[in-house]
This record gives sequence, structure tokens and C-alpha cells, in this order.
Amino acid sequence: MIETDALVIGAGPVGLFTVFQLGLQGIAAQVVDVLDEPGGQCAALYPDKPIYDIPAVPVCTGRELTLNLLQQVSPFQPGFHLSQQVSTLARQSDGRWLVGTSANTGNPQHLGQLFLARTVVIAAGVGAFVPKELKLEGLAAFAGRQLFYKLGAQPLAGKNVVIVGGEDDAVANAIALAQPGPQQARSVTLVHRRDVLQASPDALAEFAALRAAGRIHFQAGQVTGIHVADDQLTGMLVNTPEDLTLTLPLDALLVCQGISPKLGPVAQWGLAMERKQLTVDTATFATSAPGIFAVGDVITYPGKKKLIVSGFHEATLAAFAVAALLHPDASGVLQYTTSSALLQQRLGVLPVA
Amino acid sequence: MIETDALVIGAGPVGLFTVFQLGLQGIAAQVVDVLDEPGGQCAALYPDKPIYDIPAVPVCTGRELTLNLLQQVSPFQPGFHLSQQVSTLARQSDGRWLVGTSANTGNPQHLGQLFLARTVVIAAGVGAFVPKELKLEGLAAFAGRQLFYKLGAQPLAGKNVVIVGGEDDAVANAIALAQPGPQQARSVTLVHRRDVLQASPDALAEFAALRAAGRIHFQAGQVTGIHVADDQLTGMLVNTPEDLTLTLPLDALLVCQGISPKLGPVAQWGLAMERKQLTVDTATFATSAPGIFAVGDVITYPGKKKLIVSGFHEATLAAFAVAALLHPDASGVLQYTTSSALLQQRLGVLPVA
Repeated sequence: MIETDALVIGAGPVGLFTVFQLGLQGIAAQVVDVLDEPGGQCAALYPDKPIYDIPAVPVCTGRELTLNLLQQVSPFQPGFHLSQQVSTLARQSDGRWLVGTSANTGNPQHLGQLFLARTVVIAAGVGAFVPKELKLEGLAAFAGRQLFYKLGAQPLAGKNVVIVGGEDDAVANAIALAQPGPQQARSVTLVHRRDVLQASPDALAEFAALRAAGRIHFQAGQVTGIHVADDQLTGMLVNTPEDLTLTLPLDALLVCQGISPKLGPVAQWGLAMERKQLTVDTATFATSAPGIFAVGDVITYPGKKKLIVSGFHEATLAAFAVAALLHPDASGVLQYTTSSALLQQRLGVLPVA
Repeated sequence: MIETDALVIGAGPVGLFTVFQLGLQGIAAQVVDVLDEPGGQCAALYPDKPIYDIPAVPVCTGRELTLNLLQQVSPFQPGFHLSQQVSTLARQSDGRWLVGTSANTGNPQHLGQLFLARTVVIAAGVGAFVPKELKLEGLAAFAGRQLFYKLGAQPLAGKNVVIVGGEDDAVANAIALAQPGPQQARSVTLVHRRDVLQASPDALAEFAALRAAGRIHFQAGQVTGIHVADDQLTGMLVNTPEDLTLTLPLDALLVCQGISPKLGPVAQWGLAMERKQLTVDTATFATSAPGIFAVGDVITYPGKKKLIVSGFHEATLAAFAVAALLHPDASGVLQYTTSSALLQQRLGVLPVA
């Protein structure tokens, strides 16, 4: 169990800037994110797309924004806990919050983490980005046994694998499983609803070569059902563009349909909400629970716009409120990074006297 | 008279970002600032000092921050009206605001400007940065005749000039007036309370050379009074470190003691205030007057911190509120610069179809 003064849920731009502002306040933070890298949507959904409305940054990509924020927080050495989805939140008798996560690594052996936090800042955005589910009757029962949403360290070697999806991730996984080596599957079939795949030219060329060599099979069509025998998933039913129904035999199914946000457990914690968003006090960004703050796209208040620039402001005021709660006797005088020796020492740009 | 949809008062970082957000909303803005360049405090007071807390900008100087913001607003080609202090604000019968400025160029011949604005955004910071006054009994009466606060285009050639001040500006002006050429003064005496001047090494070397050549005189001491004869300012009384009182004869006095902020006329417009700051609705950043908004350090609200990051958020919400007022029928759907063709066309990064 990790004890911490501040636990930040979400490592998107607003979560990262919360960590920075907490650091300026002298508060070390732990950060949890469901994705396997920091940056949230910006890193996961549009790493290469230009963003034009970050103040004083005329243009940057989602990846550049993330790297700049990571550089900015680096003096404070936050603890990052990635591929972890926060699942439980419970107030302890001493006022601290016990926060439990579940691992999101694709490996059912991986366990979550427990935190005991004096304050929690929820910067969960529009929710945890989790793989889009394939919804077919009876399929969910095979999760972790024959149904997977991440290649991870799954033992798919030697198996007949069907992959559902048509973008980078699906193509990359098909290539990975078809390559000779200890991970190689017995057969790899990629199913996508249409005959067009979206991936980098290099990946598509490698995919085409493996297909020509008979190591990857491709089937266009809509997945419509599953075939089960003796409590084993044995096949996928696919409706082809020619309106034929095929059965693709399989040992394992890998679903790679991208990720989408799910508010998930946050909605179950009993915090005051309005239209699926947390309501906050805009002076402190406190939620309805003592010691729990929320910033960014997960919150609502009069005038709220879901913009990164607003999240940065919210993160700042939340950090001040966390500091006031943790150190009620500290001076409330506002200090500036340009002139404050204390802040410059915390940033590591001025030696401690 | 200039008619405009939006007049922004103040070209500091928050005023500039207001212009940017207005531009994204399709609204062209005019900007007024009392200083002779954009950037506000950042450009005028700490152009070379590092700032560490601009989000996603691990470090930048005040000058760099300003240049980045100017680049960011450049697609929207705002009208800049510099060296102008807003003095009057009056509501017209059609709901628009008549805004008058006075010139702050140091030349009494220069006139102000009149604007007729549908909306006004006050981003005046801690006030208009105006030269620090030299307070001596009877001195103010000579302003514009023999007393000046800016070198500007003053006709000081051939005159006996006393300069009061000890920093960059005072040293630069002494050098300028002592150089041979059409602007050369008959004599130049710099008075500073102590025998230490603050300026760049180059400027100090040039100053020393001119002093060695007898073209600049330097006198350490406290200015304690003036000498007047026939309604003419004829001398300054200076108390030296040796506690002697000297009279320095002069034809003209140039006071260069730096700048300091004065809230000035903003406090006289009848807008609701609290402890010398404007009170606003934090959903829209509207002041108590219809069509007048305020953002940045000039405002207060519960939780307000005088930080640039908060000003950027306030500027953003104010721009949305200005847009809603000017275009009440427009769709309120939030668009993103990463994905919106309309915003990218306004930014000039996507050709208009």
C-alpha cells in the first residue's frame, strides 16, 4: 500500500498540470492512469494532430503537449501508476481515502494497487479510456480465458487466433502474432467490416507480405455471433459483404476496436453529480466529499467549457485548495515562480541555501 | 472614431489571449495599452526573467511569452493602439460603449483615440503602467512644459537637462542627450540617490566614457525641492550624501524613475468593485455593466489567484460570452482547433473551401 498526500486520478494534460501545481506547493503526488502512457486523450487519440489553442503555444501536437508537461512536472518526480484503473474509493476513520485500482494490462495475473491518500484530485477527463467492447451474446463469459482486448503477455502462441479490428493496433497485433518466434500463433485471421485497413504504410506493407506468404488471413465482414461447444469458444460467425455467413474456427479471440472513454467507477462513489459530471465549488474545485477535488472534463459548473486551458486553471486552484487543507497554518501569500526563491528551489533551478 | 465588435483594454498576456479566443469565435478585436509595446508587465518589468508556471512551457522569459502570444494572435490581425490610456467610458443609446483614450507618448501634441465598441473586455491587470511621479511641491505645474517623463520627441536639444533616475532608462536617456547630433542637449546632469547605476555593461561603459569626456555630469543625492523664478523651473535642490544642499540649474527636467501600475480611470466607471478589483460573474466574466467583461488581475471572485494561467481561462470564457452576446443565434456547440475546419480556417491553417 502506498501512502501519499495527494493522489491524482488521470495523467492527461490536466492531471499532469495538477501534479505540477501541487509540486510548486511542496506536495508530492502519485498519479494513476488506465492507459499505459501519460498524456490521456492527447497521447492516445491524437498524438500527431496539431492543437492551436494552448496559450502561448501557437501550435503543438498532442504528443508534444504531453512531453512538455512531463518535462514541466519532472522536478517533482511524481509516482506514475499506469495501466491501472481506479475502482474503489472508501473513506477511512482518520479521514484519509483508501483507493484501489485494478490492472488494465491485458494479463489477468496482474493485480491492482492500493493507495492511502490524504487528498484525491480526480482529473479523469471524459472517463477512463478502455478498449471498445465487442458486444455479442454470450461472448463476455470468455473474457480472460479465450477473449482478450490487449495482446499483452497473453499466451497465444501456437493457437488459432482471430483478431477483430481494422486500425493500427489490429494490424500491429496481427503482424506480431504471425512473425516466427516464441509468440507465433498457429494461424492468424484478421476480420474487419470492410476491405480497407488504416495503419502506417510500413505496417500495411508488412501485413501484405505476411498475407501473401499465407501467414495472415484476412476476411472482410461483420461479426454477428459466436460458436460455442463444451463451454469453449470455438468459432466466430461473420457476415461477408456478399451476404454469406462464414464460421471462422478459433482458439482465441483478440478484439482491437480502439478505445473509448467510460466514466466507470467515478460515477459510483456517491459524489454529487449533474448530467454525468461531478459538481464542484469553483473557488476550490472541491467535490461534495471532504478531501476529494475534481478538475478538467469530468466536472461541470456554470460556464464550464471542456477545454484544456480551463483545466489548467482548475488544476491550479485545486492545488491551492489541497495545500490549504494539508497545511492550514501556511501563509496564504501568493508567490511567483519568477521571483520566489522557495518556488525556484522546489523547481530545482535555484540551489537550496 | 473606430467602430469595433470588441475592444480589449490591456495588451498583457491575458489581453492578448482574449484577442486570440475572440478570433477563434470569429470576432475581430481592437486592443489598447498604455505601454508602447504589447506584453504588459511581462514585457515591461521582467522581459529577461524566467517564468516556470505557464502550462506546457517549462520555462520562458517574459519577452518569449509575449512573442509567442503575438504569434498566436497574428492570424486575427488585431488593431493595436499603444501608448494610449483609456480614460472615458460612456454607454450610448444603442447600447454600444464610447471609449476615449489619452495619448501617453510624452508628447503633449499627441491626441487620444475614440472607439465605439459593441463589447469591451477589461484586461487591465493591476492597472496602467505609467511613469512613477516625482513628487515635489509645485513641480506638477511644469508638466509638458519643462517637466517630462519620457524622452519621446521632446525638443530638449540645446538645453540644460537634469535627469532624475538610476536605471536603464535614465542611463539610456542621458547617453542619447549627450551624443553629438541634432538632439544633443547643452548639458546633461544625471541625479540618482546613490552612487550606483543599474544598466547593461555596454550602457554603463558608454555612460562612463561620456562622463570622462565631460559631456555627462553625475550627482549622487536626494532631490528635495525645486527652484522657480518668473514661473519658470530654474533649478533642482539636491541633498548630497555628505548632507550638503546643491542647486542644479536647468532648462528641462526628465524624470526616469521607472513605471508603476495605477488602476486609474477603471475605478471611476461605476462598475461594481470589491477591494479595488472588479467583481464578475465567473460563468461569463461579465462585470456589472452590460457588454463589459473583465479578466485577469483586475478582477476578483471567490478563490481568485493573480496568476497568468487563471487569466487565460478567464479570457476564454469571456470570449465565449462576448460571442454569445454578439451572435445570440449561433450554435453553442464547442469546437476544437484540432478537429474543427471552421476554427482552422479562421486560424489560416486550412484554406477556406
